[in-house]
Amino acid sequence: MNSFGKNFRITIFGESHSPLIGITVDGCPAGISISEQDFYEDLKRRKPLQFGTTERKEDDFPQIISGVFNGKTTGAAITVLFENKNVKSEDYSAEIIRPSHSDFVAKQKYFGFNDFRGGGIFSGRMTVGIVAAGVIAKKIIPEIKFESSIISIGGIYSHLAHRHCGLDPQSPDSCDESFYGNIKRLRVKPTMTDTVSDDILQLLEEVSKDGDSLGGVIECTVKNVPVGFGEPFFDSLESMISHLIFSIPGIKGIEFGAGFSISEMRGSEANDCFLNEFGKTKTNNSGGINAGISNGNDIVFRVAIRPTVSINKEQETYNFSTKQIEKLKINGRNDICFALRTPVIIEAATAVVLADCCLIK
Amino acid sequence: MNSFGKNFRITIFGESHSPLIGITVDGCPAGISISEQDFYEDLKRRKPLQFGTTERKEDDFPQIISGVFNGKTTGAAITVLFENKNVKSEDYSAEIIRPSHSDFVAKQKYFGFNDFRGGGIFSGRMTVGIVAAGVIAKKIIPEIKFESSIISIGGIYSHLAHRHCGLDPQSPDSCDESFYGNIKRLRVKPTMTDTVSDDILQLLEEVSKDGDSLGGVIECTVKNVPVGFGEPFFDSLESMISHLIFSIPGIKGIEFGAGFSISEMRGSEANDCFLNEFGKTKTNNSGGINAGISNGNDIVFRVAIRPTVSINKEQETYNFSTKQIEKLKINGRNDICFALRTPVIIEAATAVVLADCCLIK
Amino acid sequence: MNSFGKNFRITIFGESHSPLIGITVDGCPAGISISEQDFYEDLKRRKPLQFGTTERKEDDFPQIISGVFNGKTTGAAITVLFENKNVKSEDYSAEIIRPSHSDFVAKQKYFGFNDFRGGGIFSGRMTVGIVAAGVIAKKIIPEIKFESSIISIGGIYSHLAHRHCGLDPQSPDSCDESFYGNIKRLRVKPTMTDTVSDDILQLLEEVSKDGDSLGGVIECTVKNVPVGFGEPFFDSLESMISHLIFSIPGIKGIEFGAGFSISEMRGSEANDCFLNEFGKTKTNNSGGINAGISNGNDIVFRVAIRPTVSINKEQETYNFSTKQIEKLKINGRNDICFALRTPVIIEAATAVVLADCCLIK
Amino acid sequence: MNSFGKNFRITIFGESHSPLIGITVDGCPAGISISEQDFYEDLKRRKPLQFGTTERKEDDFPQIISGVFNGKTTGAAITVLFENKNVKSEDYSAEIIRPSHSDFVAKQKYFGFNDFRGGGIFSGRMTVGIVAAGVIAKKIIPEIKFESSIISIGGIYSHLAHRHCGLDPQSPDSCDESFYGNIKRLRVKPTMTDTVSDDILQLLEEVSKDGDSLGGVIECTVKNVPVGFGEPFFDSLESMISHLIFSIPGIKGIEFGAGFSISEMRGSEANDCFLNEFGKTKTNNSGGINAGISNGNDIVFRVAIRPTVSINKEQETYNFSTKQIEKLKINGRNDICFALRTPVIIEAATAVVLADCCLIK
Repeated sequence: MNSFGKNFRITIFGESHSPLIGITVDGCPAGISISEQDFYEDLKRRKPLQFGTTERKEDDFPQIISGVFNGKTTGAAITVLFENKNVKSEDYSAEIIRPSHSDFVAKQKYFGFNDFRGGGIFSGRMTVGIVAAGVIAKKIIPEIKFESSIISIGGIYSHLAHRHCGLDPQSPDSCDESFYGNIKRLRVKPTMTDTVSDDILQLLEEVSKDGDSLGGVIECTVKNVPVGFGEPFFDSLESMISHLIFSIPGIKGIEFGAGFSISEMRGSEANDCFLNEFGKTKTNNSGGINAGISNGNDIVFRVAIRPTVSINKEQETYNFSTKQIEKLKINGRNDICFALRTPVIIEAATAVVLADCCLIK
Repeated sequence: MNSFGKNFRITIFGESHSPLIGITVDGCPAGISISEQDFYEDLKRRKPLQFGTTERKEDDFPQIISGVFNGKTTGAAITVLFENKNVKSEDYSAEIIRPSHSDFVAKQKYFGFNDFRGGGIFSGRMTVGIVAAGVIAKKIIPEIKFESSIISIGGIYSHLAHRHCGLDPQSPDSCDESFYGNIKRLRVKPTMTDTVSDDILQLLEEVSKDGDSLGGVIECTVKNVPVGFGEPFFDSLESMISHLIFSIPGIKGIEFGAGFSISEMRGSEANDCFLNEFGKTKTNNSGGINAGISNGNDIVFRVAIRPTVSINKEQETYNFSTKQIEKLKINGRNDICFALRTPVIIEAATAVVLADCCLIK
Repeated sequence: MNSFGKNFRITIFGESHSPLIGITVDGCPAGISISEQDFYEDLKRRKPLQFGTTERKEDDFPQIISGVFNGKTTGAAITVLFENKNVKSEDYSAEIIRPSHSDFVAKQKYFGFNDFRGGGIFSGRMTVGIVAAGVIAKKIIPEIKFESSIISIGGIYSHLAHRHCGLDPQSPDSCDESFYGNIKRLRVKPTMTDTVSDDILQLLEEVSKDGDSLGGVIECTVKNVPVGFGEPFFDSLESMISHLIFSIPGIKGIEFGAGFSISEMRGSEANDCFLNEFGKTKTNNSGGINAGISNGNDIVFRVAIRPTVSINKEQETYNFSTKQIEKLKINGRNDICFALRTPVIIEAATAVVLADCCLIK
Repeated sequence: MNSFGKNFRITIFGESHSPLIGITVDGCPAGISISEQDFYEDLKRRKPLQFGTTERKEDDFPQIISGVFNGKTTGAAITVLFENKNVKSEDYSAEIIRPSHSDFVAKQKYFGFNDFRGGGIFSGRMTVGIVAAGVIAKKIIPEIKFESSIISIGGIYSHLAHRHCGLDPQSPDSCDESFYGNIKRLRVKPTMTDTVSDDILQLLEEVSKDGDSLGGVIECTVKNVPVGFGEPFFDSLESMISHLIFSIPGIKGIEFGAGFSISEMRGSEANDCFLNEFGKTKTNNSGGINAGISNGNDIVFRVAIRPTVSINKEQETYNFSTKQIEKLKINGRNDICFALRTPVIIEAATAVVLADCCLIK
């Protein structure tokens, strides 16, 4: 359904080509300062880059239409709207069933009544609402800090990078190949000014010329999370984070702390030794979560993002009209690599979960 | 909280050392045949093995106390109870804060009032209720078939796999190297008679002597899922499955289809070409899920299970009484490798989600 | 919170003086014809009358911004927006704490940050969204018919009733004295053309001159409800209807079937004898609901609506600035009798509940 | 469904003739003292009386099976079980469709698979769980006090009221005629020792001899409720209370404050003048709730309880076997007047709602 959360609840609406899309945020406490400007930075981080992402450009100007009065939250539901201006519906047809796209399942599930233009509700465009909700969520938990980094793009793990819970400035070469397979990982600052490494840029260029697309892995680190977030038995912190993360289009995997690598460790190696009464641990293989509950250390997780399904390269697929397998070539405006825009969305989703945890606690 | 699901909802209660533990299943349609015998097979699959798992042995006799009349479900909530007989509470103390265990977070979250005996609500014992709920869920969706296999134990990926979900003796060579990175994976039948490969057995023996523990990776394959399960925007099928899977103690990662590997593919390689009007695809990198909705192909996902946190080997950790980092050695009855018992729990959790999807649809 | 419903869920947002107010409807099946015109009739029934209701006039033009494509629902969330144009915020002040109004509780609950203009989220203006949701709900259950009537205004129970829900000119004498205590009740058709009886009109005029306000009792009858709506134990049909009805501002009571009168009957008198295999009963003291579940007979309930709390007559109340009890006189644009506009809102709320029941079933 | 509440959530299970029935309470904070003895008083108040209620007598011994350790709540879900010992299933048959009973709707809704013995899940027996949940809820909000009184039985409003909630012998004249229409109402203390007035006793005796049954009206008053309980828009305090109250079998009406009478007042009469900065009002026509939110004054509401549907007197009804309208006479063990046992159940339901409000706030 279109709502998520318990005490801090978000409801999303709109479609890729609807006149407006928006998010309603319910449960935000009264008295928090909020203005449209507060949204700009995170919205900008989600915008298409100069290179490697879609040519569809939107202003993404947030209109707060409720829940804020005299610059402060009122305690009422906050709705933020965005206009969809830059739509080119002629690019789309209900007849084309693209491989791995929402086309097939949407047509089946909604008996052909789905709004297929631009992917409808399955469009990455919807995530503008998640980012807006994240901005509000972050204001509820101002002490909690989010950092996300691109670990890899198309399998390239840059050498200026590192392992598991962040950059150790003392060891710029501290890549750990055993940890996440053979992955070298770059921690990147959540700003607009960061650049992807040259080899990734080169790959993006190649793939762009070829009409193909790329995926990537994003790591999110959350600092200053209090002990005690997460509600057993069914609302473990991993449960809630993964639930919302998997709502973001194109995510196919998530792992916390040492993740899949922990399955290869022995218990004596995997266990994180407590160092003090506040629960600080020597290692953080648990990713800041024990028994589904935050333990006060950094929450660390990684998500796997598939390559954009919409490509401008010829593919084979079943043609539902001619009932034959045929070659298909689409020309659309697609992100070559949506993963590049995803870090802020991952952060936003995580902030929404943690704000809910905070209000539950 | 202790409930999960919308139209098919489960509520869990009890603790490791409470006299009874149980599960209430709400939303089960009337008229389905169910008896206590129906639970035996799956409960048996969850039981400790001869080797590698806990010495705590429970009868696990299910008592259906409501919702079934004359051998058929009535439409009312079904509650199934299990006795906890084999408890040894003297093994536990509130003073010991074991590394990576629930001890620290539970003490903090519940101000020291948590029932720490046997891990309380954080015990793997709770999963007996999940398995029982899974048995009921499977009856709602009898056409859907579950298979789970052990991909690896302690980093060993065996050709000669595996027990607990069982080896298919007819296809000893059915490994698929392309799927999960460089992992050789055997699809195995869920029977009781299978054995773990010799090298894994040897590893278990070594680790057991050492008082240490092991983790593993489980793969779950679900066949005959109809097209259309999953509810956008926030209840994608991956969202719902991962939510419940991460409630199971000790899970640290999940990936669908090609999972993390898909992040290294190009779009043209990752996309699954449709072959016919029913949505059958040539490859299944999407794991049977497009845009959060089942596409009719096998749902495939893998979960990473950490080594058991309770080990009998000396560890260092902070002593909250002496306020020093000290050596700690515990003697308890623990699973050396809980992953060996997990396949049926993974299946059960997945069945609960799919039964809910089925009733929503 | 701002959402209601399970499988058919509505989320409301906006405030009396926000630029837009709206409703998001989640769970509406795909393929249902819907246009903005479909909303006009019910929205018109909610509009202020020539007499007896507020002078604030709004266009109430519904803007469907999502969930509808080519005139049909798509299966996605439907959001309908309305502009608030006719606002006069200078009428309001945070300092005035009007008796029985939301002023006091809102100020306390939201620490003074609530948007007090026009009552904010507590305004009757919010109900425009409920009416819109009701229009959509009615399309899901087209066979179910709603009729609502004004039973009384200000204590006057007229034979020659009534406007807004309409008089049945064919049966001016169809009063039923036995049903609702000593109340004469006219079942009336939901048309726009009806007029309030002369004695009620006269009362409205008197009260208007006096700056005072009136309440009333509305009865709602729902025909063709299938057997089986309502979910034990906690979601009885009365539970769900009353939950949503009591969200409407100004409702202070609800009774089903014979309601409070049934407490005075003996069982042999109150019980409704079944007449045929479809469950048709001779009497309908149960109001179409047995054991919380619809029994196929007309669902009948009545709601008590308080007089508008905002009056233009002098009242005494505590002045929070001077800390004294003082006389207070406000000049605002208020409904003299909001009950006159309420029937369509009651119907809409009921339709929302029944659409949810229909989708659950 | 079988769960109610958000942050304090109850799940009910069992049936009239199941071996056990119970309630699971989720969300109770850790560290609250609780023992089985704490349940005795309220459970006793729900028990059959010497006269006027069912002959089925149960021990109602509560077994706390989880969530309590060393006499304190642990933060985990609390489950309380009760045995059903005194069952006489031979009294019941699936073929008898009693007027106004759950028989017809249950058979239709559950396709004949419902457990009809003793009314199954529709039995008043289920309310033992509500009372147990109420005991726990009251411990979360110890400062809030509940008083309930029998306003009338079978239409008799006695000065010399009343049993079960108890007579205040010190104030036999404390009737308030202005409040509930023409009803004389006695506020009464919740003690065990009170007796029903002579005229009501006489009526009960008559009706008992006749094999018939009686209903009644109960008033509940809640003192010391903080300002600010209730969540707009859809979770008004009236919404939440009425939702849970209408889950109790046999309730057909609820009204808050002046209730239906307020519809006959003018605004100037109905409005409650504030007397001080804490929100104390001169009158309490609003029943302690403004705009769906508690205003700090006593919450007051009344519920209408139908006469027991199971009577031992001959009735006419449709015979689904012979397909004719026939005379029906049943001999069972029924409450002549279930209303006499209802006050404590009403209180318990209200406490559950207020505990949830408290934890939400």
